[in-house]
Amino acid sequence: MTELELLSRLRRLPLHSGALRLTDDAARLGDFVLTTDLMVEGVHFLPDDPPADVAWKLLAVNLSDLAAKGAVPEGVLLGMPVGDPVWDAAFLDGLDSALRAFECALLGGDTVSGGRTFALTAIGRAAVAPVRSGARPGDGLWVTGTIGDAGAGLAIARGTDGPDTLVQRYRRPTPRLAEGRALAKQVTAMMDVSDGLLIDAARMAEASGCAVTIDLAAVPLSDAYRGWSGDRMAAATTGDDYELLFALPPGVDPAAPATRVGRFAGGRGLALTDGGAPVPLPPKLGWLHA
Amino acid sequence: MTELELLSRLRRLPLHSGALRLTDDAARLGDFVLTTDLMVEGVHFLPDDPPADVAWKLLAVNLSDLAAKGAVPEGVLLGMPVGDPVWDAAFLDGLDSALRAFECALLGGDTVSGGRTFALTAIGRAAVAPVRSGARPGDGLWVTGTIGDAGAGLAIARGTDGPDTLVQRYRRPTPRLAEGRALAKQVTAMMDVSDGLLIDAARMAEASGCAVTIDLAAVPLSDAYRGWSGDRMAAATTGDDYELLFALPPGVDPAAPATRVGRFAGGRGLALTDGGAPVPLPPKLGWLHA
Repeated sequence: MTELELLSRLRRLPLHSGALRLTDDAARLGDFVLTTDLMVEGVHFLPDDPPADVAWKLLAVNLSDLAAKGAVPEGVLLGMPVGDPVWDAAFLDGLDSALRAFECALLGGDTVSGGRTFALTAIGRAAVAPVRSGARPGDGLWVTGTIGDAGAGLAIARGTDGPDTLVQRYRRPTPRLAEGRALAKQVTAMMDVSDGLLIDAARMAEASGCAVTIDLAAVPLSDAYRGWSGDRMAAATTGDDYELLFALPPGVDPAAPATRVGRFAGGRGLALTDGGAPVPLPPKLGWLHA
Repeated sequence: MTELELLSRLRRLPLHSGALRLTDDAARLGDFVLTTDLMVEGVHFLPDDPPADVAWKLLAVNLSDLAAKGAVPEGVLLGMPVGDPVWDAAFLDGLDSALRAFECALLGGDTVSGGRTFALTAIGRAAVAPVRSGARPGDGLWVTGTIGDAGAGLAIARGTDGPDTLVQRYRRPTPRLAEGRALAKQVTAMMDVSDGLLIDAARMAEASGCAVTIDLAAVPLSDAYRGWSGDRMAAATTGDDYELLFALPPGVDPAAPATRVGRFAGGRGLALTDGGAPVPLPPKLGWLHA
Protein backbone atom coordinates (compact mmCIF):
# COMPACT_ATOMS: atom_id res chain seq x y z
CA MET A 1 0.00 0.00 0.00
CA THR A 2 1.36 3.45 -0.84
CA GLU A 3 1.10 6.28 1.69
CA LEU A 4 -1.85 7.69 -0.31
CA GLU A 5 -3.71 4.37 -0.49
CA LEU A 6 -3.22 3.91 3.24
CA LEU A 7 -4.50 7.40 3.96
CA SER A 8 -7.49 6.80 1.74
CA ARG A 9 -8.31 3.60 3.66
CA LEU A 10 -7.89 5.36 7.00
CA ARG A 11 -10.27 8.09 5.81
CA ARG A 12 -13.00 5.50 5.26
CA LEU A 13 -12.99 4.67 8.98
CA PRO A 14 -15.52 6.47 11.20
CA LEU A 15 -13.75 9.83 11.63
CA HIS A 16 -14.18 12.31 14.44
CA SER A 17 -14.89 15.86 13.24
CA GLY A 18 -11.75 16.90 15.13
CA ALA A 19 -9.72 14.58 12.90
CA LEU A 20 -10.00 17.30 10.19
CA ARG A 21 -10.37 14.47 7.63
CA LEU A 22 -6.81 13.39 8.55
CA THR A 23 -5.41 16.33 6.57
CA ASP A 24 -3.34 17.65 9.45
CA ASP A 25 -0.67 16.56 11.93
CA ALA A 26 -2.83 17.12 14.99
CA ALA A 27 -6.45 16.60 15.97
CA ARG A 28 -8.77 19.02 17.73
CA LEU A 29 -11.01 18.30 20.70
CA GLY A 30 -12.50 21.48 22.10
CA ASP A 31 -9.55 23.66 23.09
CA PHE A 32 -7.26 20.64 23.09
CA VAL A 33 -4.85 19.68 20.33
CA LEU A 34 -3.73 16.05 20.18
CA THR A 35 -0.97 14.29 18.30
CA THR A 36 0.69 10.88 18.46
CA ASP A 37 3.90 9.41 17.06
CA LEU A 38 5.59 6.04 17.09
CA MET A 39 9.37 5.71 17.16
CA VAL A 40 10.67 2.34 15.97
CA GLU A 41 14.18 1.04 16.59
CA GLY A 42 16.00 0.63 13.29
CA VAL A 43 13.64 3.07 11.57
CA HIS A 44 13.48 6.24 13.67
CA PHE A 45 16.46 5.60 15.92
CA LEU A 46 19.46 3.30 15.93
CA PRO A 47 20.17 0.61 18.54
CA ASP A 48 23.33 2.46 19.62
CA ASP A 49 21.73 5.93 19.83
CA PRO A 50 22.00 7.31 23.38
CA PRO A 51 18.72 6.32 25.11
CA ALA A 52 18.35 9.80 26.63
CA ASP A 53 18.40 11.26 23.12
CA VAL A 54 15.75 8.78 21.93
CA ALA A 55 13.48 9.95 24.75
CA TRP A 56 14.22 13.61 24.06
CA LYS A 57 13.42 13.20 20.38
CA LEU A 58 10.22 11.23 21.05
CA LEU A 59 8.92 14.12 23.11
CA ALA A 60 10.32 16.85 20.88
CA VAL A 61 8.78 15.58 17.63
CA ASN A 62 5.35 15.44 19.23
CA LEU A 63 5.66 18.84 20.86
CA SER A 64 6.76 20.17 17.48
CA ASP A 65 3.32 19.21 16.13
CA LEU A 66 1.78 21.13 19.03
CA ALA A 67 4.06 24.09 18.30
CA ALA A 68 2.71 24.22 14.75
CA LYS A 69 -0.77 24.64 16.30
CA GLY A 70 0.40 27.43 18.60
CA ALA A 71 -0.49 25.16 21.51
CA VAL A 72 0.76 25.15 25.10
CA PRO A 73 1.81 21.57 26.04
CA GLU A 74 -0.46 20.14 28.71
CA GLY A 75 0.71 16.56 29.12
CA VAL A 76 1.82 13.37 27.43
CA LEU A 77 0.93 9.69 27.51
CA LEU A 78 3.91 7.37 27.05
CA GLY A 79 3.99 3.85 25.61
CA MET A 80 7.30 2.30 26.62
CA PRO A 81 8.82 -1.12 25.98
CA VAL A 82 11.08 -2.14 28.87
CA GLY A 83 13.64 -4.87 29.29
CA ASP A 84 17.17 -3.52 29.74
CA PRO A 85 17.27 -1.72 33.13
CA VAL A 86 20.33 0.39 32.26
CA TRP A 87 18.94 1.50 28.91
CA ASP A 88 15.48 2.08 30.37
CA ALA A 89 16.84 4.21 33.24
CA ALA A 90 18.85 6.35 30.81
CA PHE A 91 15.76 6.73 28.63
CA LEU A 92 13.72 7.94 31.61
CA ASP A 93 16.49 10.38 32.58
CA GLY A 94 16.33 11.83 29.05
CA LEU A 95 12.55 12.04 29.22
CA ASP A 96 12.82 13.80 32.56
CA SER A 97 15.20 16.44 31.09
CA ALA A 98 13.03 16.96 28.06
CA LEU A 99 9.77 17.25 30.04
CA ARG A 100 11.42 19.90 32.24
CA ALA A 101 12.99 21.72 29.28
CA PHE A 102 9.63 22.02 27.53
CA GLU A 103 7.54 22.54 30.69
CA CYS A 104 5.45 19.48 30.04
CA ALA A 105 4.27 16.67 32.35
CA LEU A 106 3.48 12.99 32.20
CA LEU A 107 -0.25 12.19 32.22
CA GLY A 108 -0.02 8.42 32.01
CA GLY A 109 1.02 5.58 29.82
CA ASP A 110 1.67 1.91 29.38
CA THR A 111 4.78 -0.19 29.75
CA VAL A 112 5.24 -3.50 27.94
CA SER A 113 7.89 -6.17 27.94
CA GLY A 114 8.95 -6.67 24.36
CA GLY A 115 9.06 -4.82 21.09
CA ARG A 116 11.29 -1.82 20.44
CA THR A 117 8.63 0.71 19.52
CA PHE A 118 7.94 3.78 21.64
CA ALA A 119 4.68 5.70 21.43
CA LEU A 120 3.87 9.14 22.67
CA THR A 121 0.64 11.08 22.61
CA ALA A 122 0.93 14.78 23.37
CA ILE A 123 -1.95 17.01 24.37
CA GLY A 124 -1.83 20.78 24.25
CA ARG A 125 -4.20 23.68 24.62
CA ALA A 126 -4.79 26.29 21.93
CA ALA A 127 -7.63 28.76 21.51
CA VAL A 128 -6.79 29.31 17.83
CA ALA A 129 -5.01 26.47 16.03
CA PRO A 130 -3.71 27.10 12.52
CA VAL A 131 -4.17 24.34 9.96
CA ARG A 132 -1.85 23.47 7.11
CA SER A 133 -4.52 24.08 4.47
CA GLY A 134 -5.12 27.84 4.78
CA ALA A 135 -2.38 29.34 2.58
CA ARG A 136 -3.62 31.75 -0.10
CA PRO A 137 -2.14 32.94 -3.39
CA GLY A 138 0.10 35.91 -2.64
CA ASP A 139 1.05 34.72 0.85
CA GLY A 140 4.73 34.44 1.60
CA LEU A 141 6.21 31.09 2.70
CA TRP A 142 8.38 31.48 5.81
CA VAL A 143 10.47 29.21 7.98
CA THR A 144 11.93 29.64 11.47
CA GLY A 145 15.56 28.89 12.33
CA THR A 146 17.92 27.16 9.92
CA ILE A 147 17.35 24.23 7.59
CA GLY A 148 19.47 21.15 6.87
CA ASP A 149 21.30 20.88 10.18
CA ALA A 150 19.52 17.69 11.27
CA GLY A 151 20.09 16.00 7.90
CA ALA A 152 23.79 16.80 8.18
CA GLY A 153 23.73 15.58 11.79
CA LEU A 154 22.28 12.24 10.70
CA ALA A 155 25.04 11.82 8.10
CA ILE A 156 27.65 12.67 10.73
CA ALA A 157 26.05 10.29 13.26
CA ARG A 158 26.37 7.59 10.57
CA GLY A 159 30.10 8.16 10.17
CA THR A 160 30.69 11.18 7.91
CA ASP A 161 33.10 13.77 9.34
CA GLY A 162 31.51 16.84 10.84
CA PRO A 163 30.86 18.83 13.99
CA ASP A 164 28.94 17.48 16.97
CA THR A 165 26.72 20.59 17.05
CA LEU A 166 25.00 19.27 13.90
CA VAL A 167 24.57 15.80 15.45
CA GLN A 168 22.91 17.46 18.42
CA ARG A 169 20.47 19.20 16.09
CA TYR A 170 19.51 15.74 14.79
CA ARG A 171 19.34 14.02 18.17
CA ARG A 172 17.91 16.79 20.34
CA PRO A 173 15.63 18.92 18.19
CA THR A 174 13.91 21.89 19.80
CA PRO A 175 10.17 22.23 19.26
CA ARG A 176 9.47 25.88 18.42
CA LEU A 177 6.76 26.28 21.04
CA ALA A 178 7.18 29.98 21.85
CA GLU A 179 7.49 30.84 18.16
CA GLY A 180 4.39 28.82 17.34
CA ARG A 181 2.33 30.61 19.98
CA ALA A 182 3.53 34.01 18.75
CA LEU A 183 2.79 33.18 15.11
CA ALA A 184 -0.52 31.32 15.54
CA LYS A 185 -2.76 34.38 15.22
CA GLN A 186 -0.93 35.79 12.19
CA VAL A 187 -0.44 32.84 9.89
CA THR A 188 -2.86 31.53 7.29
CA ALA A 189 -1.26 28.06 7.49
CA MET A 190 1.42 26.46 9.65
CA MET A 191 3.11 23.06 10.04
CA ASP A 192 6.46 21.76 11.20
CA VAL A 193 9.27 20.72 8.86
CA SER A 194 9.68 17.06 9.68
CA ASP A 195 10.26 15.38 6.33
CA GLY A 196 12.10 18.13 4.43
CA LEU A 197 11.46 21.73 3.46
CA LEU A 198 10.50 20.98 -0.15
CA ILE A 199 8.17 18.08 0.53
CA ASP A 200 6.50 19.77 3.49
CA ALA A 201 6.02 23.01 1.52
CA ALA A 202 4.54 20.97 -1.34
CA ARG A 203 2.14 19.37 1.14
CA MET A 204 1.08 22.75 2.50
CA ALA A 205 0.46 24.03 -1.02
CA GLU A 206 -1.46 20.88 -1.99
CA ALA A 207 -3.63 21.04 1.15
CA SER A 208 -4.27 24.75 0.49
CA GLY A 209 -5.09 24.30 -3.19
CA CYS A 210 -2.23 26.64 -4.20
CA ALA A 211 1.06 26.54 -6.03
CA VAL A 212 4.24 27.45 -4.20
CA THR A 213 7.65 28.57 -5.43
CA ILE A 214 10.70 28.27 -3.18
CA ASP A 215 13.90 30.20 -3.79
CA LEU A 216 16.81 27.98 -2.78
CA ALA A 217 19.07 31.02 -2.35
CA ALA A 218 16.80 32.19 0.46
CA VAL A 219 16.90 28.93 2.47
CA PRO A 220 18.47 29.86 5.82
CA LEU A 221 21.60 27.90 6.71
CA SER A 222 23.52 27.78 9.98
CA ASP A 223 27.19 28.67 10.11
CA ALA A 224 27.90 25.06 11.12
CA TYR A 225 26.08 23.79 8.03
CA ARG A 226 27.81 26.29 5.73
CA GLY A 227 31.13 25.09 7.12
CA TRP A 228 30.14 21.45 6.67
CA SER A 229 28.81 21.48 3.09
CA GLY A 230 26.60 24.50 2.54
CA ASP A 231 24.62 22.48 -0.06
CA ARG A 232 21.23 24.21 -0.20
CA MET A 233 19.46 21.51 -2.21
CA ALA A 234 20.56 18.87 0.30
CA ALA A 235 19.40 21.10 3.16
CA ALA A 236 15.99 21.55 1.57
CA THR A 237 15.41 17.84 0.99
CA THR A 238 16.44 16.27 4.32
CA GLY A 239 14.14 15.97 7.29
CA ASP A 240 14.10 16.23 11.05
CA ASP A 241 14.61 20.00 11.32
CA TYR A 242 11.40 20.58 13.30
CA GLU A 243 11.36 24.24 12.37
CA LEU A 244 8.01 25.91 11.71
CA LEU A 245 6.89 26.47 8.14
CA PHE A 246 4.13 29.01 7.69
CA ALA A 247 2.22 31.19 5.26
CA LEU A 248 1.83 34.89 5.97
CA PRO A 249 -0.13 37.49 4.01
CA PRO A 250 2.06 39.99 2.10
CA GLY A 251 3.13 42.97 4.19
CA VAL A 252 2.78 41.20 7.53
CA ASP A 253 5.95 40.91 9.61
CA PRO A 254 6.27 37.59 11.47
CA ALA A 255 6.01 37.82 15.26
CA ALA A 256 8.95 35.40 15.64
CA PRO A 257 12.36 35.37 13.88
CA ALA A 258 11.90 33.72 10.49
CA THR A 259 13.07 33.84 6.88
CA ARG A 260 10.89 34.20 3.79
CA VAL A 261 11.80 31.36 1.46
CA GLY A 262 9.00 31.44 -1.08
CA ARG A 263 5.60 32.58 -2.24
CA PHE A 264 2.22 30.98 -2.87
CA ALA A 265 0.39 31.54 -6.15
CA GLY A 266 -2.70 30.32 -7.95
CA GLY A 267 -2.46 26.87 -9.54
CA ARG A 268 -0.91 23.68 -8.17
CA GLY A 269 2.47 22.21 -7.44
CA LEU A 270 5.94 23.15 -6.29
CA ALA A 271 8.50 25.12 -8.31
CA LEU A 272 12.09 25.99 -7.45
CA THR A 273 14.28 28.96 -8.24
CA ASP A 274 17.82 29.81 -7.24
CA GLY A 275 18.29 33.53 -6.90
CA GLY A 276 15.24 33.97 -9.13
CA ALA A 277 16.28 31.63 -11.98
CA PRO A 278 14.18 28.47 -12.37
CA VAL A 279 15.88 25.20 -11.38
CA PRO A 280 14.51 21.67 -11.90
CA LEU A 281 13.01 19.79 -8.95
CA PRO A 282 15.24 17.10 -7.43
CA PRO A 283 14.10 13.46 -7.83
CA LYS A 284 13.41 13.25 -4.08
CA LEU A 285 11.74 16.18 -2.29
CA GLY A 286 12.24 14.74 1.18
CA TRP A 287 11.68 11.77 3.41
CA LEU A 288 8.77 9.63 2.21
CA HIS A 289 7.38 7.18 4.71
CA ALA A 290 4.34 5.08 5.35
CA MET B 1 13.66 -3.51 36.90
CA THR B 2 10.56 -4.92 38.56
CA GLU B 3 7.15 -3.43 37.79
CA LEU B 4 7.29 -1.56 41.13
CA GLU B 5 10.80 -0.16 40.54
CA LEU B 6 9.72 0.99 37.10
CA LEU B 7 6.61 2.66 38.49
CA SER B 8 8.67 4.35 41.17
CA ARG B 9 11.03 5.74 38.50
CA LEU B 10 8.10 6.90 36.37
CA ARG B 11 6.63 8.68 39.41
CA ARG B 12 9.80 10.75 39.75
CA LEU B 13 9.18 12.31 36.31
CA PRO B 14 7.32 15.63 36.23
CA LEU B 15 3.73 14.42 36.66
CA HIS B 16 0.55 16.18 35.60
CA SER B 17 -2.04 16.48 38.38
CA GLY B 18 -4.40 14.54 36.09
CA ALA B 19 -1.96 11.61 36.18
CA LEU B 20 -3.33 10.85 39.69
CA ARG B 21 0.25 9.91 40.71
CA LEU B 22 0.04 7.04 38.17
CA THR B 23 -2.20 5.12 40.55
CA ASP B 24 -4.93 4.56 38.00
CA ASP B 25 -5.49 3.17 34.51
CA ALA B 26 -6.62 6.47 33.02
CA ALA B 27 -5.67 10.12 33.34
CA ARG B 28 -7.96 13.11 33.80
CA LEU B 29 -7.89 16.37 31.88
CA GLY B 30 -10.92 18.50 32.65
CA ASP B 31 -13.93 16.40 31.67
CA PHE B 32 -11.75 14.17 29.53
CA VAL B 33 -10.43 10.75 30.50
CA LEU B 34 -7.37 9.47 28.64
CA THR B 35 -5.73 6.08 28.40
CA THR B 36 -3.11 4.48 26.18
CA ASP B 37 -2.02 0.89 25.49
CA LEU B 38 0.62 -0.80 23.40
CA MET B 39 0.01 -4.19 21.78
CA VAL B 40 3.18 -6.04 20.84
CA GLU B 41 3.30 -9.00 18.46
CA GLY B 42 4.44 -12.09 20.32
CA VAL B 43 3.45 -10.59 23.68
CA HIS B 44 -0.15 -9.35 23.39
CA PHE B 45 -1.09 -11.09 20.15
CA LEU B 46 0.28 -13.91 18.03
CA PRO B 47 1.58 -13.56 14.47
CA ASP B 48 -1.21 -15.82 13.20
CA ASP B 49 -4.05 -14.13 15.13
CA PRO B 50 -6.66 -12.74 12.71
CA PRO B 51 -5.66 -9.10 12.06
CA ALA B 52 -9.27 -7.92 12.46
CA ASP B 53 -9.30 -9.42 15.96
CA VAL B 54 -6.02 -7.69 16.84
CA ALA B 55 -7.57 -4.36 15.88
CA TRP B 56 -10.78 -5.13 17.76
CA LYS B 57 -8.86 -6.01 20.90
CA LEU B 58 -6.59 -2.96 20.67
CA LEU B 59 -9.66 -0.74 20.70
CA ALA B 60 -11.63 -2.81 23.22
CA VAL B 61 -8.92 -2.89 25.91
CA ASN B 62 -8.57 0.87 25.80
CA LEU B 63 -12.32 1.48 25.81
CA SER B 64 -12.53 -0.90 28.77
CA ASP B 65 -10.36 1.57 30.73
CA LEU B 66 -12.80 4.31 29.75
CA ALA B 67 -15.74 2.10 30.79
CA ALA B 68 -14.23 1.79 34.27
CA LYS B 69 -14.36 5.61 34.46
CA GLY B 70 -18.00 5.72 33.34
CA ALA B 71 -16.81 7.65 30.29
CA VAL B 72 -18.42 8.07 26.87
CA PRO B 73 -15.80 7.35 24.17
CA GLU B 74 -14.97 10.46 22.18
CA GLY B 75 -12.19 9.37 19.86
CA VAL B 76 -8.94 7.48 19.46
CA LEU B 77 -5.45 8.11 18.14
CA LEU B 78 -3.88 5.10 16.39
CA GLY B 79 -0.20 4.22 16.03
CA MET B 80 0.05 1.59 13.30
CA PRO B 81 3.03 -0.23 11.79
CA VAL B 82 2.34 -1.06 8.14
CA GLY B 83 4.06 -3.35 5.68
CA ASP B 84 1.84 -6.23 4.58
CA PRO B 85 -1.04 -4.75 2.55
CA VAL B 86 -3.34 -7.77 3.03
CA TRP B 87 -2.77 -7.91 6.78
CA ASP B 88 -3.04 -4.13 7.10
CA ALA B 89 -6.32 -4.00 5.17
CA ALA B 90 -7.82 -6.74 7.35
CA PHE B 91 -6.65 -4.89 10.45
CA LEU B 92 -8.35 -1.70 9.28
CA ASP B 93 -11.55 -3.65 8.52
CA GLY B 94 -11.52 -4.93 12.09
CA LEU B 95 -10.90 -1.46 13.45
CA ASP B 96 -13.78 -0.16 11.37
CA SER B 97 -16.16 -2.78 12.82
CA ALA B 98 -15.00 -2.12 16.37
CA LEU B 99 -15.25 1.67 16.06
CA ARG B 100 -18.81 1.31 14.79
CA ALA B 101 -19.74 -1.31 17.42
CA PHE B 102 -18.57 0.97 20.25
CA GLU B 103 -19.73 4.25 18.64
CA CYS B 104 -16.25 5.68 18.62
CA ALA B 105 -14.31 7.58 15.96
CA LEU B 106 -10.74 8.04 14.78
CA LEU B 107 -9.18 11.36 15.78
CA GLY B 108 -5.77 10.85 14.22
CA GLY B 109 -2.63 8.81 14.43
CA ASP B 110 0.68 7.85 12.96
CA THR B 111 1.72 5.09 10.59
CA VAL B 112 5.25 3.72 10.47
CA SER B 113 7.05 1.18 8.33
CA GLY B 114 8.58 -1.35 10.66
CA GLY B 115 8.09 -2.77 14.09
CA ARG B 116 5.11 -4.88 15.13
CA THR B 117 3.80 -2.76 17.96
CA PHE B 118 0.43 -1.07 17.82
CA ALA B 119 -0.46 1.88 20.01
CA LEU B 120 -3.84 3.34 20.79
CA THR B 121 -4.82 6.32 22.87
CA ALA B 122 -8.49 6.59 23.75
CA ILE B 123 -10.20 9.74 24.95
CA GLY B 124 -13.58 9.78 26.62
CA ARG B 125 -15.77 12.24 28.47
CA ALA B 126 -17.00 11.75 32.02
CA ALA B 127 -18.39 14.26 34.50
CA VAL B 128 -17.73 11.94 37.44
CA ALA B 129 -14.92 9.40 37.04
CA PRO B 130 -14.49 6.73 39.73
CA VAL B 131 -10.95 5.90 40.81
CA ARG B 132 -9.65 2.52 41.93
CA SER B 133 -8.62 3.82 45.35
CA GLY B 134 -11.97 4.69 46.94
CA ALA B 135 -13.16 1.36 48.38
CA ARG B 136 -14.05 1.45 52.09
CA PRO B 137 -14.24 -1.26 54.76
CA GLY B 138 -17.71 -2.78 54.61
CA ASP B 139 -18.16 -2.18 50.85
CA GLY B 140 -19.04 -5.18 48.74
CA LEU B 141 -16.77 -6.23 45.85
CA TRP B 142 -18.76 -6.81 42.66
CA VAL B 143 -18.01 -7.87 39.11
CA THR B 144 -20.02 -7.63 35.89
CA GLY B 145 -20.51 -10.57 33.51
CA THR B 146 -18.60 -13.83 33.87
CA ILE B 147 -14.95 -14.49 34.72
CA GLY B 148 -12.44 -16.90 33.20
CA ASP B 149 -13.83 -17.11 29.67
CA ALA B 150 -10.95 -15.20 28.07
CA GLY B 151 -8.32 -17.25 29.88
CA ALA B 152 -10.00 -20.42 28.63
CA GLY B 153 -10.20 -18.86 25.16
CA LEU B 154 -6.46 -18.21 25.15
CA ALA B 155 -5.75 -21.83 26.10
CA ILE B 156 -8.09 -23.00 23.33
CA ALA B 157 -6.51 -20.59 20.79
CA ARG B 158 -3.17 -22.18 21.73
CA GLY B 159 -4.39 -25.69 20.93
CA THR B 160 -6.42 -27.04 23.87
CA ASP B 161 -9.83 -28.47 22.90
CA GLY B 162 -12.77 -26.20 23.59
CA PRO B 163 -15.58 -24.14 22.10
CA ASP B 164 -15.03 -21.19 19.78
CA THR B 165 -17.34 -19.02 21.91
CA LEU B 166 -14.60 -18.91 24.55
CA VAL B 167 -11.94 -18.04 21.93
CA GLN B 168 -14.16 -15.17 20.83
CA ARG B 169 -14.29 -13.89 24.40
CA TYR B 170 -10.48 -13.77 24.33
CA ARG B 171 -10.14 -12.25 20.87
CA ARG B 172 -13.10 -9.87 20.81
CA PRO B 173 -13.71 -8.62 24.35
CA THR B 174 -16.58 -6.22 24.95
CA PRO B 175 -15.82 -3.07 26.94
CA ARG B 176 -18.63 -2.61 29.47
CA LEU B 177 -19.33 0.99 28.47
CA ALA B 178 -23.05 1.17 29.27
CA GLU B 179 -22.53 -0.67 32.55
CA GLY B 180 -19.69 1.66 33.50
CA ARG B 181 -21.81 4.74 32.88
CA ALA B 182 -24.69 3.31 34.92
CA LEU B 183 -22.41 2.37 37.81
CA ALA B 184 -20.14 5.43 37.88
CA LYS B 185 -22.25 7.46 40.30
CA GLN B 186 -22.82 4.57 42.72
CA VAL B 187 -19.44 2.99 43.16
CA THR B 188 -16.74 3.96 45.64
CA ALA B 189 -14.06 2.42 43.39
CA MET B 190 -14.03 0.84 39.92
CA MET B 191 -11.50 -0.68 37.50
CA ASP B 192 -11.55 -3.26 34.74
CA VAL B 193 -10.41 -6.86 35.17
CA SER B 194 -7.51 -7.08 32.75
CA ASP B 195 -4.90 -9.14 34.56
CA GLY B 196 -7.10 -11.48 36.63
CA LEU B 197 -9.83 -11.14 39.24
CA LEU B 198 -7.59 -11.87 42.24
CA ILE B 199 -4.69 -9.65 41.29
CA ASP B 200 -6.92 -6.76 40.20
CA ALA B 201 -9.01 -7.01 43.39
CA ALA B 202 -5.78 -7.04 45.43
CA ARG B 203 -4.67 -3.89 43.59
CA MET B 204 -7.97 -2.15 44.33
CA ALA B 205 -7.70 -3.07 48.01
CA GLU B 206 -4.06 -1.94 48.15
CA ALA B 207 -4.86 1.39 46.45
CA SER B 208 -7.81 1.88 48.81
CA GLY B 209 -5.86 0.98 51.98
CA CYS B 210 -8.26 -1.88 52.75
CA ALA B 211 -8.25 -5.64 52.99
CA VAL B 212 -10.49 -7.65 50.68
CA THR B 213 -11.84 -11.21 50.91
CA ILE B 214 -13.11 -12.97 47.79
CA ASP B 215 -15.37 -16.01 47.94
CA LEU B 216 -14.40 -18.31 45.06
CA ALA B 217 -17.82 -20.00 45.18
CA ALA B 218 -19.38 -16.66 44.22
CA VAL B 219 -17.21 -16.05 41.13
CA PRO B 220 -19.65 -15.95 38.19
CA LEU B 221 -18.94 -18.49 35.45
CA SER B 222 -20.48 -18.81 31.98
CA ASP B 223 -22.19 -22.01 30.88
CA ALA B 224 -19.47 -22.39 28.24
CA TYR B 225 -16.77 -22.18 30.91
CA ARG B 226 -18.58 -24.59 33.23
CA GLY B 227 -18.78 -27.04 30.33
CA TRP B 228 -15.09 -26.55 29.50
CA SER B 229 -13.50 -26.90 32.94
CA GLY B 230 -15.49 -24.99 35.54
CA ASP B 231 -12.26 -24.43 37.53
CA ARG B 232 -12.98 -21.37 39.66
CA MET B 233 -9.41 -20.81 40.84
CA ALA B 234 -8.20 -20.84 37.20
CA ALA B 235 -11.00 -18.45 36.26
CA ALA B 236 -10.04 -16.03 39.03
CA THR B 237 -6.34 -15.96 38.10
CA THR B 238 -6.39 -15.53 34.32
CA GLY B 239 -6.68 -12.19 32.60
CA ASP B 240 -8.27 -10.49 29.60
CA ASP B 241 -11.88 -10.63 30.84
CA TYR B 242 -12.41 -6.84 30.66
CA GLU B 243 -15.35 -7.02 33.02
CA LEU B 244 -15.84 -4.22 35.55
CA LEU B 245 -14.76 -4.73 39.13
CA PHE B 246 -16.24 -2.30 41.63
CA ALA B 247 -16.87 -1.51 45.27
CA LEU B 248 -20.37 -0.66 46.43
CA PRO B 249 -21.54 0.40 49.89
CA PRO B 250 -23.59 -2.25 51.71
CA GLY B 251 -27.30 -2.14 50.91
CA VAL B 252 -26.86 -0.48 47.50
CA ASP B 253 -28.11 -2.44 44.48
CA PRO B 254 -25.86 -2.10 41.42
CA ALA B 255 -27.39 -0.20 38.49
CA ALA B 256 -26.05 -2.82 36.04
CA PRO B 257 -26.16 -6.64 36.22
CA ALA B 258 -23.32 -7.81 38.47
CA THR B 259 -22.37 -10.42 41.05
CA ARG B 260 -21.07 -9.79 44.53
CA VAL B 261 -17.86 -11.79 44.92
CA GLY B 262 -16.33 -10.36 48.07
CA ARG B 263 -16.15 -7.74 50.76
CA PHE B 264 -13.69 -5.06 51.87
CA ALA B 265 -12.55 -4.81 55.47
CA GLY B 266 -10.09 -2.89 57.58
CA GLY B 267 -6.45 -3.98 57.31
CA ARG B 268 -4.45 -4.96 54.26
CA GLY B 269 -4.16 -7.77 51.74
CA LEU B 270 -6.25 -10.31 49.91
CA ALA B 271 -7.87 -13.40 51.46
CA LEU B 272 -9.79 -16.21 49.79
CA THR B 273 -12.69 -18.36 50.91
CA ASP B 274 -14.66 -21.06 49.14
CA GLY B 275 -18.25 -21.12 50.29
CA GLY B 276 -17.11 -19.32 53.45
CA ALA B 277 -14.22 -21.65 54.38
CA PRO B 278 -10.73 -20.09 54.11
CA VAL B 279 -8.56 -21.38 51.27
CA PRO B 280 -4.86 -20.56 50.66
CA LEU B 281 -3.89 -18.03 48.00
CA PRO B 282 -2.54 -19.54 44.78
CA PRO B 283 1.14 -18.86 43.95
CA LYS B 284 0.13 -16.62 41.03
CA LEU B 285 -2.78 -14.18 41.43
CA GLY B 286 -2.88 -13.22 37.77
CA TRP B 287 -0.91 -11.88 34.87
CA LEU B 288 2.13 -9.89 36.02
CA HIS B 289 3.73 -7.71 33.41
CA ALA B 290 6.11 -4.80 33.04
